[in-house]
Amino acid sequence: MGVIVQKFGGTSVANAEKIRRAAARAIEAFKKGSQVIVVASARGKQTDELIADAMELNPNPPRREMDMLLSTGEQQTVSLMAMALDAMGHKAISFTGSQIKMLTDGAHTRARIISIDANIIRRKLDTGHIVIVAGFQGMDEEEDITTLGRGGSDTSAVALAAALKADVCEIYTDVDGIYTSDPRKYPKAVKMARISYDEMLELASLGAGVMHGRAVEFGKKYDVPIHVRSSMNDEPGTLITHEVPQMEGILVSGATIQKDLAKLSLLGVDNRPGNAAKIFSHLARAKVIVNDIIQTEISTEKANISFTVATGDLSDAKKAIDEISGEVHCQGIFVRGDIAEVSVVGVGMRSHYGVADKMFRALAEAEVNIDSITTSEIRISCIVDLTDAEKALVAVCDAFELDKSAEARTQPK
Amino acid sequence: MGVIVQKFGGTSVANAEKIRRAAARAIEAFKKGSQVIVVASARGKQTDELIADAMELNPNPPRREMDMLLSTGEQQTVSLMAMALDAMGHKAISFTGSQIKMLTDGAHTRARIISIDANIIRRKLDTGHIVIVAGFQGMDEEEDITTLGRGGSDTSAVALAAALKADVCEIYTDVDGIYTSDPRKYPKAVKMARISYDEMLELASLGAGVMHGRAVEFGKKYDVPIHVRSSMNDEPGTLITHEVPQMEGILVSGATIQKDLAKLSLLGVDNRPGNAAKIFSHLARAKVIVNDIIQTEISTEKANISFTVATGDLSDAKKAIDEISGEVHCQGIFVRGDIAEVSVVGVGMRSHYGVADKMFRALAEAEVNIDSITTSEIRISCIVDLTDAEKALVAVCDAFELDKSAEARTQPK
Repeated sequence: MGVIVQKFGGTSVANAEKIRRAAARAIEAFKKGSQVIVVASARGKQTDELIADAMELNPNPPRREMDMLLSTGEQQTVSLMAMALDAMGHKAISFTGSQIKMLTDGAHTRARIISIDANIIRRKLDTGHIVIVAGFQGMDEEEDITTLGRGGSDTSAVALAAALKADVCEIYTDVDGIYTSDPRKYPKAVKMARISYDEMLELASLGAGVMHGRAVEFGKKYDVPIHVRSSMNDEPGTLITHEVPQMEGILVSGATIQKDLAKLSLLGVDNRPGNAAKIFSHLARAKVIVNDIIQTEISTEKANISFTVATGDLSDAKKAIDEISGEVHCQGIFVRGDIAEVSVVGVGMRSHYGVADKMFRALAEAEVNIDSITTSEIRISCIVDLTDAEKALVAVCDAFELDKSAEARTQPK
Repeated sequence: MGVIVQKFGGTSVANAEKIRRAAARAIEAFKKGSQVIVVASARGKQTDELIADAMELNPNPPRREMDMLLSTGEQQTVSLMAMALDAMGHKAISFTGSQIKMLTDGAHTRARIISIDANIIRRKLDTGHIVIVAGFQGMDEEEDITTLGRGGSDTSAVALAAALKADVCEIYTDVDGIYTSDPRKYPKAVKMARISYDEMLELASLGAGVMHGRAVEFGKKYDVPIHVRSSMNDEPGTLITHEVPQMEGILVSGATIQKDLAKLSLLGVDNRPGNAAKIFSHLARAKVIVNDIIQTEISTEKANISFTVATGDLSDAKKAIDEISGEVHCQGIFVRGDIAEVSVVGVGMRSHYGVADKMFRALAEAEVNIDSITTSEIRISCIVDLTDAEKALVAVCDAFELDKSAEARTQPK
């Protein structure tokens, strides 16, 4: 008998009516012949309220105690969900992360899963229960409660699906899948039927919300198909899976625009071993998260080093650079706060030429100037003026026909 | 170094200000040289709100899931309390019942404590932490979360005090101790400095709130002094302890009046072995809690059997009696719903004559008619007309000088 994991986020369990609706979905899957594990988040704004309660007592609360506090939100949801299932005539049992031995490291508020004792769950599945597990939480070796940080419930769900060898991990959310681009910025965007883990990871790192990178990484590592779909209807959503041959026929799967970016350039840095390491380890110590890095030699002795950061990190980054600039003999610092990054992602780039060319041409035709370019194996990103952001995205989306289904734009090999 | 347990009820931790005040008390005790364990209940109306959430989904929720839900209330309080202590510069750590291995039986919503792993707590005390434990909850052998039912946090606190061999278990509450009688009904009542476990158990069974019987039983069994005191001031409250010789010099420690009572009488029941058992086992099956039982022979073959129940149980009791009356050849059933029971309690009765006489005389002088009388070793109760309830209590309190301190009314041996 197949196992299915269904994960419901906070908005999908915000009140009694929504909890009942989620319970009905679990029963439906059960009646179709699956063993069902439900993973649930805290109800609606619960977590925010608990954080406010904590802040009132301690603006810098100990992380261990924060995890102790926040984990109650999911615990409430799962017990209520079990009650709803019982009222609907179904055997159900709820578990905390600790109870199923969801063992994590001890990094409170951002712990990583080490192992899960699948037997506890399996025994209950085998006696006809729908098993409901509190997402977002685990426990460390000391049996202290830990939480998994942003996107934690998704990660719990995918990890459980891996441990129980589930056929699929369904992520129910308030959007109905992954789109070729953000429909608010490119209204012609279409829902993807399928996307590869690697593409999804690139999109997640480019800020295209929906799924958190860690959950996708877990899915990739254990080959768990992740089905992102709407909790409001029965339409199929988007399946995140390992790469299949037909994906290579599509040049570009999706396009994104990131706006809250700044670019810092160190001009005329001494081009010798260890200087880049000095700069970026100093930035890491200052807790600045660096996005793209571009280095170019400008002479045999000198190089320019540029990198992008979130606008929120700009002042910290600037301060760190000022501190280190003397040490690397930097001749000048140049900062741009008014930039955006337009990116295209697709595994098809690996086997097709001309993707970059097509992107640059689209931007040129739209009269968008390209400041700089970075690429990965399956991504091309261009930094453009912030004022050109929308125009750049639309131009790129149109060029790669992201208003059409994947089938309609499959290229010959 | 001595250990002290401080228990704070829901009203004493209802908001951030009150949590801080409770935290300050713990620090004060720590600074005076004790190792401190704090036991906390759910904040204010939290438990009621969670019950309402449950009822919305399932009017008859599975008890296991109810425990899973309700235990989150205390977990929130203890983590918040630890944050408050941290903000006040103090090392603190919070634990759930499961984490300290507060092992109970599996009777969800009314579980009984079997054992506690004191080592987990002791290790943290020995490294200078104030340890905060979620009251009201434990876990059974399956590692399912259990709750202890009414008065559960008091029981947790006393059980922890026993396990850690604490010098005292302080129960902080919104009253400032145990009074000789209910001050709302006998305004001259005075606070007792000391009361024995047995007296407190009798008072608790007579509905004189403050402490639940189970917590007192635990205190008696393990000889834990329980100090009931106000969370609003620093006045000493009432110490519940083992019996000390001077207690015997006091005829009566306290007096109570219970109003929500009804009396059922089975008249002319066949007086043969097993008939009383038939009646009361039938009542037990109907889940009626019987208070006092009075049986009197009226001939060699017949007896009258009377008993009292809470008014809320009257209709169930009447139904059960109607069902069984034929089987025990009952000649008539007589029900009184308009009764009250006035009681006096004191270990001094054991060694002094004339307590009953003094009580009956006081009632007679106040022109209160006595319907029936029951006694235990340290208690005398009289059933009176409901309309005479207040008058009866005042007469009895005055007769035993319950407006005076224990010292002032100590009798020669």
